[in-house]
Amino acid sequence: MVEGTGLVAAAFEQHWDVEAVFLAAGHQWEAPMAVPTYELGPGVIERVASTDTPQPVMAVVRRKASSLEELRGKSFVLVGDRITDPGNAGTMLRSAEAAGADAVVFTDGSVDVFNPKVVRSSAGALFNVPVVVDVALTDVLALDGYRSWGTSSHQGSAYTTLDWRGPTMLVLGNEAHGLPADAPVDGWVTIAHVGRAESLNVAMAATVLVFEVARQRSAR
Amino acid sequence: MVEGTGLVAAAFEQHWDVEAVFLAAGHQWEAPMAVPTYELGPGVIERVASTDTPQPVMAVVRRKASSLEELRGKSFVLVGDRITDPGNAGTMLRSAEAAGADAVVFTDGSVDVFNPKVVRSSAGALFNVPVVVDVALTDVLALDGYRSWGTSSHQGSAYTTLDWRGPTMLVLGNEAHGLPADAPVDGWVTIAHVGRAESLNVAMAATVLVFEVARQRSAR
Repeated sequence: MVEGTGLVAAAFEQHWDVEAVFLAAGHQWEAPMAVPTYELGPGVIERVASTDTPQPVMAVVRRKASSLEELRGKSFVLVGDRITDPGNAGTMLRSAEAAGADAVVFTDGSVDVFNPKVVRSSAGALFNVPVVVDVALTDVLALDGYRSWGTSSHQGSAYTTLDWRGPTMLVLGNEAHGLPADAPVDGWVTIAHVGRAESLNVAMAATVLVFEVARQRSAR
Repeated sequence: MVEGTGLVAAAFEQHWDVEAVFLAAGHQWEAPMAVPTYELGPGVIERVASTDTPQPVMAVVRRKASSLEELRGKSFVLVGDRITDPGNAGTMLRSAEAAGADAVVFTDGSVDVFNPKVVRSSAGALFNVPVVVDVALTDVLALDGYRSWGTSSHQGSAYTTLDWRGPTMLVLGNEAHGLPADAPVDGWVTIAHVGRAESLNVAMAATVLVFEVARQRSAR
């Protein structure tokens, strides 16, 4: 279920398969394509929506995920390993899209990226960047052609000292536990920061890192 | 009111004036300094806390804000103009702390930074970085000794092309409206990104920008 006019419009724009649109009682909205559209009775959307103040436009959209195979030959992939917070997953999608990543992967044990909270916090990025889900981290890291970097709050090369222009897989781990110390990545990277440990969460770290990749790639 | 063992501990560590500690019924916790500590009756903390699943340790902490005067002679200040979302304000504090900003300013019309949601989403950064509140944007920008940069989603120099090593004031505007077009900043800066407009929110933009400042300053 996709909730909100902007998000539903984004699903149409990006050619996702919108199966049905539901409108709050009395609300007018015309879908950009012919799809079954239903006006709900008074008070119904409040019961269906995932938020306390529901949006007047909702849609059922068919899930669409990419496969690991489709990542072959790409250049920049963001990987979230067991990311459990919907807001973090959404922000990672949003940053990845904005920074020009080719795809985002969420491994087994991550939050469902089609969960309305993720869709909402992605601000529609879910519809704009290919997403791979339900895969094992080891299978992701076994893909040829990438240099994979595990991120850590306390070990590895400073992200500012690395060359990010080659095919890059950037891997961030679970909110509480980080990545497994034995994750078979090609290298480890960290964000040096002032002040206390743990001062960045996984979504902020992803944002910093993907934009450094973008910065290096845009510089000529 | 500060909620949660980690946040209350951070307030003590950073020498904020903790006036009283409240513990959930049956919970043991010893404050690092002698302060009045009260064990609440069963079910009371659930009524007092701002979250559905309250933390067992809460404290009343005296508010502490810096003045604009204290920003004289500093080198890096992050300014939020009419930032209304607690999560965004908290993330801005957290990023500013991690990137080594000297202070954060929130202008009139911003969310109360001492609101429990801001404290929580700042992950304690509120206690670690000086904060100026309740000031007019024009008074902030009138401070001598800084070059001030207004951020915009659509106009200005690419942030990657600027030299951020001098005394810098980085100004981000309201979530819905951005900065006033006539804000008397010294220059405008934007984050070039791939894909749709509006693909970064204010907190993500702040995170990208403060870490670019930190990156340039750490490079020798």
